[in-house]
Amino acid sequence: MDQLLRVMNFNVSSDGIGAGEHQSRELPFGLERPERLFSWAGATASWPMRTDGGGSRGLDDYFTRDFARDIGAEIMGRNKFGPQRGPWADHAWRGWWGEEPPFHTPVFVMTHHERPSFTLSDTTFHFVAGEPAAILERAREAAHGKDVRLGGGVGTVRQFLDAGLVDTLHVAVSPLKLGSGLRLWDTPEDLLDRYHLEVVPSPSGVAHHLFWRR
Amino acid sequence: MDQLLRVMNFNVSSDGIGAGEHQSRELPFGLERPERLFSWAGATASWPMRTDGGGSRGLDDYFTRDFARDIGAEIMGRNKFGPQRGPWADHAWRGWWGEEPPFHTPVFVMTHHERPSFTLSDTTFHFVAGEPAAILERAREAAHGKDVRLGGGVGTVRQFLDAGLVDTLHVAVSPLKLGSGLRLWDTPEDLLDRYHLEVVPSPSGVAHHLFWRR
Repeated sequence: MDQLLRVMNFNVSSDGIGAGEHQSRELPFGLERPERLFSWAGATASWPMRTDGGGSRGLDDYFTRDFARDIGAEIMGRNKFGPQRGPWADHAWRGWWGEEPPFHTPVFVMTHHERPSFTLSDTTFHFVAGEPAAILERAREAAHGKDVRLGGGVGTVRQFLDAGLVDTLHVAVSPLKLGSGLRLWDTPEDLLDRYHLEVVPSPSGVAHHLFWRR
Repeated sequence: MDQLLRVMNFNVSSDGIGAGEHQSRELPFGLERPERLFSWAGATASWPMRTDGGGSRGLDDYFTRDFARDIGAEIMGRNKFGPQRGPWADHAWRGWWGEEPPFHTPVFVMTHHERPSFTLSDTTFHFVAGEPAAILERAREAAHGKDVRLGGGVGTVRQFLDAGLVDTLHVAVSPLKLGSGLRLWDTPEDLLDRYHLEVVPSPSGVAHHLFWRR
């Protein structure tokens, strides 16, 4: 079996927007109440950040429970790690993900600015520069035969899509319209020349968009 | 997290029938062309019996790829192991599942007739008598903290449902009407007093029925 590159549980609005334009430490998504996009995931039993025993076990739960399955590494854009721009000034701040990051694998953070790797619990963050194909090669090696998750954000997913490197995408489209921000697509049909698409409406209100290569 | 008892990828017709009444070695489901019920699963990339690299990666694939996730043991009725009735006459015949059974865990086969355990590849079959609760207890112990899959057939699922032991069910309902045979339910609504239900139609034509405890 090949090592797939997979976008998983990625959230956009009905008009294709995944984040606002003005990210800050207080607003990681650059959006007021970003949970309007991802609350469907938080309601499920298998949500990776869940600490109690509750949650739903319907359709949405199949997507959150798949988050870690057969994943050996993640690639993320710098903005999914933190809001800083330019050289890393503050090494004491170690990202938005807390002392127990939900990744549990090596994570490759794309940045042109050097920073030493560090480990929080069982997640090691590496800071890497280069073309998407080269970074994917490194992530595949670290994944030891397992798949690689492409974590986002929007710009990073677009970059790997444009390079033809993404094998499957699961995008949850919320019924909410945002109007402006960082846009994944004008319409999901933009990808139909290269991918199969199934659209699965969920009782929670989101429409799961499932793409895999033609 | 509790160890759940889960029915997964269980197939019935639109009138609730999972198997014919006359099972034989040639007709494991007692049905002509039983693939009319389960071909949706065989079309997916993650179907456990798949040997090539193809298959779809849409909605149906989320169900087949979940087959082994966090499962540490399976319980099955005797008829899912083989068509024999009464005492085991032929120990040389070791079930329908070939030399590489798709379970990869201990499997507990319910039967009143003693038979020694044996191992095929990484699956060990144990032959056990007793009440559902006691058999579940043994399977949970063997599963080392993981969930237990309830594999069927119809009578076995009914028996554990009646004992209140099933935590979640995924039943794929095909658009095919069979008329007679072994019936899981008159209607899925029979279970609504005890379970939440989401019905998710798939582009393949089946309707995935997802139940979890209220």
